Amino acid sequence: MAIPPESESLSMNVPRRVGLWLIGAHGGVGSTTALGLAALARGQILPTGMVTALPEFAHVIFDEPAAFVIGGHELRPTTFAESIAELKSRSNIFSEAVIAATAEQLSEWDANICPARTNDGPALAAVDAMAADIRAFQRQYDLAAIVVINVASTEPVCDSTAYPTEALAFESWLERSGTTVPASTLAAWAAVRAGCAYVNLTPSLGGRFAAFEDHCRRYGIPHGGQDAKTGETLLKSVLAPMFRMRNLRVLSWVGHNILGNRDGQVLSDPANKASKLRTKDALLAEMLGYRPQSHVSIEYIESLDDWKTAWDHIHFEGFLGVKMTLQLTWQGCDSALAAPLVIDLARLALLARQRGHIGAIPALACFFKSPIGTTVHELSQQYEMLCEYVLRVDL
Amino acid sequence: MAIPPESESLSMNVPRRVGLWLIGAHGGVGSTTALGLAALARGQILPTGMVTALPEFAHVIFDEPAAFVIGGHELRPTTFAESIAELKSRSNIFSEAVIAATAEQLSEWDANICPARTNDGPALAAVDAMAADIRAFQRQYDLAAIVVINVASTEPVCDSTAYPTEALAFESWLERSGTTVPASTLAAWAAVRAGCAYVNLTPSLGGRFAAFEDHCRRYGIPHGGQDAKTGETLLKSVLAPMFRMRNLRVLSWVGHNILGNRDGQVLSDPANKASKLRTKDALLAEMLGYRPQSHVSIEYIESLDDWKTAWDHIHFEGFLGVKMTLQLTWQGCDSALAAPLVIDLARLALLARQRGHIGAIPALACFFKSPIGTTVHELSQQYEMLCEYVLRVDL
Amino acid sequence: MAIPPESESLSMNVPRRVGLWLIGAHGGVGSTTALGLAALARGQILPTGMVTALPEFAHVIFDEPAAFVIGGHELRPTTFAESIAELKSRSNIFSEAVIAATAEQLSEWDANICPARTNDGPALAAVDAMAADIRAFQRQYDLAAIVVINVASTEPVCDSTAYPTEALAFESWLERSGTTVPASTLAAWAAVRAGCAYVNLTPSLGGRFAAFEDHCRRYGIPHGGQDAKTGETLLKSVLAPMFRMRNLRVLSWVGHNILGNRDGQVLSDPANKASKLRTKDALLAEMLGYRPQSHVSIEYIESLDDWKTAWDHIHFEGFLGVKMTLQLTWQGCDSALAAPLVIDLARLALLARQRGHIGAIPALACFFKSPIGTTVHELSQQYEMLCEYVLRVDL
Amino acid sequence: MAIPPESESLSMNVPRRVGLWLIGAHGGVGSTTALGLAALARGQILPTGMVTALPEFAHVIFDEPAAFVIGGHELRPTTFAESIAELKSRSNIFSEAVIAATAEQLSEWDANICPARTNDGPALAAVDAMAADIRAFQRQYDLAAIVVINVASTEPVCDSTAYPTEALAFESWLERSGTTVPASTLAAWAAVRAGCAYVNLTPSLGGRFAAFEDHCRRYGIPHGGQDAKTGETLLKSVLAPMFRMRNLRVLSWVGHNILGNRDGQVLSDPANKASKLRTKDALLAEMLGYRPQSHVSIEYIESLDDWKTAWDHIHFEGFLGVKMTLQLTWQGCDSALAAPLVIDLARLALLARQRGHIGAIPALACFFKSPIGTTVHELSQQYEMLCEYVLRVDL
Repeated sequence: MAIPPESESLSMNVPRRVGLWLIGAHGGVGSTTALGLAALARGQILPTGMVTALPEFAHVIFDEPAAFVIGGHELRPTTFAESIAELKSRSNIFSEAVIAATAEQLSEWDANICPARTNDGPALAAVDAMAADIRAFQRQYDLAAIVVINVASTEPVCDSTAYPTEALAFESWLERSGTTVPASTLAAWAAVRAGCAYVNLTPSLGGRFAAFEDHCRRYGIPHGGQDAKTGETLLKSVLAPMFRMRNLRVLSWVGHNILGNRDGQVLSDPANKASKLRTKDALLAEMLGYRPQSHVSIEYIESLDDWKTAWDHIHFEGFLGVKMTLQLTWQGCDSALAAPLVIDLARLALLARQRGHIGAIPALACFFKSPIGTTVHELSQQYEMLCEYVLRVDL
Repeated sequence: MAIPPESESLSMNVPRRVGLWLIGAHGGVGSTTALGLAALARGQILPTGMVTALPEFAHVIFDEPAAFVIGGHELRPTTFAESIAELKSRSNIFSEAVIAATAEQLSEWDANICPARTNDGPALAAVDAMAADIRAFQRQYDLAAIVVINVASTEPVCDSTAYPTEALAFESWLERSGTTVPASTLAAWAAVRAGCAYVNLTPSLGGRFAAFEDHCRRYGIPHGGQDAKTGETLLKSVLAPMFRMRNLRVLSWVGHNILGNRDGQVLSDPANKASKLRTKDALLAEMLGYRPQSHVSIEYIESLDDWKTAWDHIHFEGFLGVKMTLQLTWQGCDSALAAPLVIDLARLALLARQRGHIGAIPALACFFKSPIGTTVHELSQQYEMLCEYVLRVDL
Repeated sequence: MAIPPESESLSMNVPRRVGLWLIGAHGGVGSTTALGLAALARGQILPTGMVTALPEFAHVIFDEPAAFVIGGHELRPTTFAESIAELKSRSNIFSEAVIAATAEQLSEWDANICPARTNDGPALAAVDAMAADIRAFQRQYDLAAIVVINVASTEPVCDSTAYPTEALAFESWLERSGTTVPASTLAAWAAVRAGCAYVNLTPSLGGRFAAFEDHCRRYGIPHGGQDAKTGETLLKSVLAPMFRMRNLRVLSWVGHNILGNRDGQVLSDPANKASKLRTKDALLAEMLGYRPQSHVSIEYIESLDDWKTAWDHIHFEGFLGVKMTLQLTWQGCDSALAAPLVIDLARLALLARQRGHIGAIPALACFFKSPIGTTVHELSQQYEMLCEYVLRVDL
Repeated sequence: MAIPPESESLSMNVPRRVGLWLIGAHGGVGSTTALGLAALARGQILPTGMVTALPEFAHVIFDEPAAFVIGGHELRPTTFAESIAELKSRSNIFSEAVIAATAEQLSEWDANICPARTNDGPALAAVDAMAADIRAFQRQYDLAAIVVINVASTEPVCDSTAYPTEALAFESWLERSGTTVPASTLAAWAAVRAGCAYVNLTPSLGGRFAAFEDHCRRYGIPHGGQDAKTGETLLKSVLAPMFRMRNLRVLSWVGHNILGNRDGQVLSDPANKASKLRTKDALLAEMLGYRPQSHVSIEYIESLDDWKTAWDHIHFEGFLGVKMTLQLTWQGCDSALAAPLVIDLARLALLARQRGHIGAIPALACFFKSPIGTTVHELSQQYEMLCEYVLRVDL
């Protein structure tokens, strides 16, 4: 059943085209990704914020921005232009020049965005419908490969401990029991069925359970996730190691996040928030070697729009019992931090697919709060893992 | 001329005793080091803040705290007890219990503190006098080895470019020309003559010039430095790599430091301040790969005493030109941050001496703002260098 | 039934003695108040942090620190010495010299601390028992007057809307219905019965309902409250007016408080926390003239002990729609901030009693988050009210 | 010689037109003022940030935005459109809609901006030439009155102690001695000669010396200044009183300002910087009643453009000697903070002129770091002075 990576194009002269299929395409991250890809393809912007554009990867053959076609699923009836305009007016980002120059491209891609299928009756029927959408997109543009990336709003925490651990068993359990699984999971399942690499940028369940790994293995598909590391947790993943490397004892670590975008609105529902908090908080103990008191909160503050602001207060003890403090304030624009990572992950997942990588890709750990397939949380170690994976030549 | 590491004690049953000779012994860092060593030896405190006490080094045979005897040079007529009392009352650190239990030991060590010799006429005469002090200390306590560590106040910036590059030429130049070299340099020269490992915790020149390296090689001595990385620069050495690993462009990095201890007072002299600022600021470009606008200032604010407070404002650009900000405030007690590193460096330099290491020890880079013998500034890379050096078994 | 302020002492040569009866005497605030009063009486400390010690009040005849005798009620079996020792060791405050010099006095006052009576059967019986304790204290020390101040832990929010509005009706309702009212309310009721001025430093209900005002009027007693303004809210009461006086539009105001003392522990119970948050948040709209989005959170972080740390993020709009930000971090020691206000309020309530003031004292507004008898929240206006009240000469 | 306020228009039906003559018209503040006035006149924006638009002044008859015509002097050859475009692109402020709708008006006003005259030979000749420019402007637009406001870049500190104290003596001294006085002073002198009210928004000398006050009195002219209070100092003027009203002892107050606009560039010249620092720092002692250690620094950080960021660290002592800390970070857009105050001051100075006010206007104190004619620095007191002045009905 395994689907081979892709048919090599017959002529070396024609560069391949690839698809980026976004779950939640018209959201803030999805729209910024589309705007950025179009602007990069036109040479209007530098690839600032893109890991795959770092000099150490200069000789790696990644798919070029111009090679990408965007498609996706979306619940709300809107367009890239509307989402971009809302981000611009509310969060005061993006230049008119870039918006104008990419407008036509974005409008063309709008036509590839299909209505979300996850509520279309039985679970497996929805999966089939989504996979069909993706395959139609592939045929339409004659795409060498597609990567499906979940950038939709965070779902409530979901207990997956009762899921069967094998792919086929999971499917029949799904059919038989009428159980509802998260929309993100159905979309992930569909991506694999359509032969696409899959990446989950959100804290939602997506493909983080044993049967999905089995599903990927059966189809010969690579996947990655979970929950992009863009701000406060990114800082934790370099600061916690610093405290550890100096043997300074962290007594407590408090993080207070405020933001006003759709993600924030969704998080103001306690069920969704729990999902996020869990992944933000777990990694401290792993990095420090003990569990200090920690507290993370997220509040929806409308006026901040896409500007996520985080205050961290770290209380620590040094030599002779002296207690000291480090505080930080991070003021980052969420969409602008996440979008380049979407492009990175698209390129890296497509590379993995080309190399025939099957199952979870632990080398993507540096992008995630809850990396799949590894428990390494230190950014510098994760980055070494990425370099080793990308730069290895024994293929 | 090389002085062999040390004569092995005849019986394995008697643990060796070692000396820690502090230049500026009665200052804040020196006194805290003495208090801490005495408290550690009595089992009164945990080794929090000591790198050599991390689990990864559990099987390395470092000299135990109880093995150390403290001696040193000091300009001001004072005692450990007085310095400790001043730190306690002004900066509100140290517990009465620890002070009481170590009082006798500290008073005993006071007897080993000699008046500074650096103004005793001709430079080489001062060197001889200092070396004689150290050798007398060694004989008195029958010490297997001594490490000399400079923890004195920061000296004015010193232009060493005209120094001859060979040890003997340097000595005759010194004698002939009547040139004054910094006190820290004479002390370093004396340490090597006395056969001791040498470490420079301060931004002063000490042994950072070619003739000193040659001097060490002739005597078979290891040395390390320069300028301990205890606060703001420590943070830079993990945060700058974070920005680089995410390809986020640092536009400007501003650091404002305020402190009220003797170090701060000395730094309020612009000549001394320049010395400090130079080492605090240089490493950004090395870590980022380009030179953002940066500004570091240090001001003496008396009420803060030993509590060095640093505000850093980092302005950076992400995807699509969006400008974002990270701010930090570090509130650290200088002496309590530096003292455990003094003990670490004493143990590591004595280990290097035992292993017969000659010349600069690049593996100590993680302790310094301006490491000697390497240009690596990233803390995680530096830490790997340390682990590799300490844990290597091919001895 | 009104109890006359106090019998004038026959001779002017003997200064009067007064009582300070603390509800929750052995808590952090109570113990720090006792330590401070004793130290002030001995001339060991300056009255820093005391409003009544400001130069503008130099000619007002307040009761001197040495005139005070401390008594009170307390639930937990402990002593001032134990509480002070715990504060010292955990929060690193207070000098040994002050503790030693006041130890005997504090131990003497310990004998005046009675077990709390609020669970002794029927409500009115508890009231009677408490009033009897206070009267016995007055007789024992021959006190000219007593002020009762509630410094106990915050109680859960309590709905007092159904309380009868007249004192006698309230008492019979209490007797008849067997309803439980908060312990703070019973203590307040008892204070008035014993002829004492009453002040509520906490967010608990205490005497903030109509029948209590009537009760005070019948007994001719002054009272004040509620919820001392010591940190974040104090800042709000000068910063919100600043924004208003500049016509800058506050878009959102977020406050995140972390603390680790008993107050913090009690607040980690959501019922108690609600009580606190309500009073911290209400005053913004009153000062600004509109209601911006606001959010206040309080979390118990053990390692901070008595050091309450608050981060405030204020997002505001200026001319031409430009959005700007002010952030603050307040690091204050709760007990040391509240204790001098307890002494101030004791002196001011005793002054009001001497002047024959009956009912709520709106002039105390500057001390409280929810002042009784006024809706003025701006600190400078409140301070003018205080000055006018204290300095008026038409008595 | 006094010039009467203005000839009343004969018919009440024709509203009067007034002139706003800006020294340094095309700078950031000048251009933002022009943009804002034009937008207000068109009803495109709300008067957020304007003090004169507060509800308490609703019944005061101020000149309406539509009544203003802008003229001025400017050194650099540029236009409002260019300055606005630069502010927009560099500092990411102003909406396209507002810029488009006001473009024609601003271009019309550009024609009223004359080249600066201050280097045109002898001082008094320059004064005459400037006064002639202003009078020509008045005739051209048939303006009822004009207010001249200095919004030019900060000049170096200037020692005016040797200036003669009477107007005529000053003029002959100027003629005789060939002494150079600051350009801001010549412009102020010219304003008065042309019969215009004068306001100095900058720390430059302008009219802050005795002979100028005499000059104003001879011409019957009101004036105000000096150095608009828009950010860090505004905060000081509410926070210092808070500490005083609580009797908390400020131990040290450190302010570090970073900014990247032309003002910042000018300030990177130490001579100009001194001028600014002096006015920023002086008011603490006046408000607190003692002089804590204080330090203010300003650095030019290009990437920040018009976003002035200030970090303040306030170290203070409370009861029982406990040391505590307040830190703030202010991120404000300089032009957007200053421009509405320019409009306020124009309206208030024109009101004063109409009322026949002569000499310094102390009631404007709330707008300035170094108010002329008063030593009151507390914002709430200053605001009361303003209200009293504006709302008094005894005219």
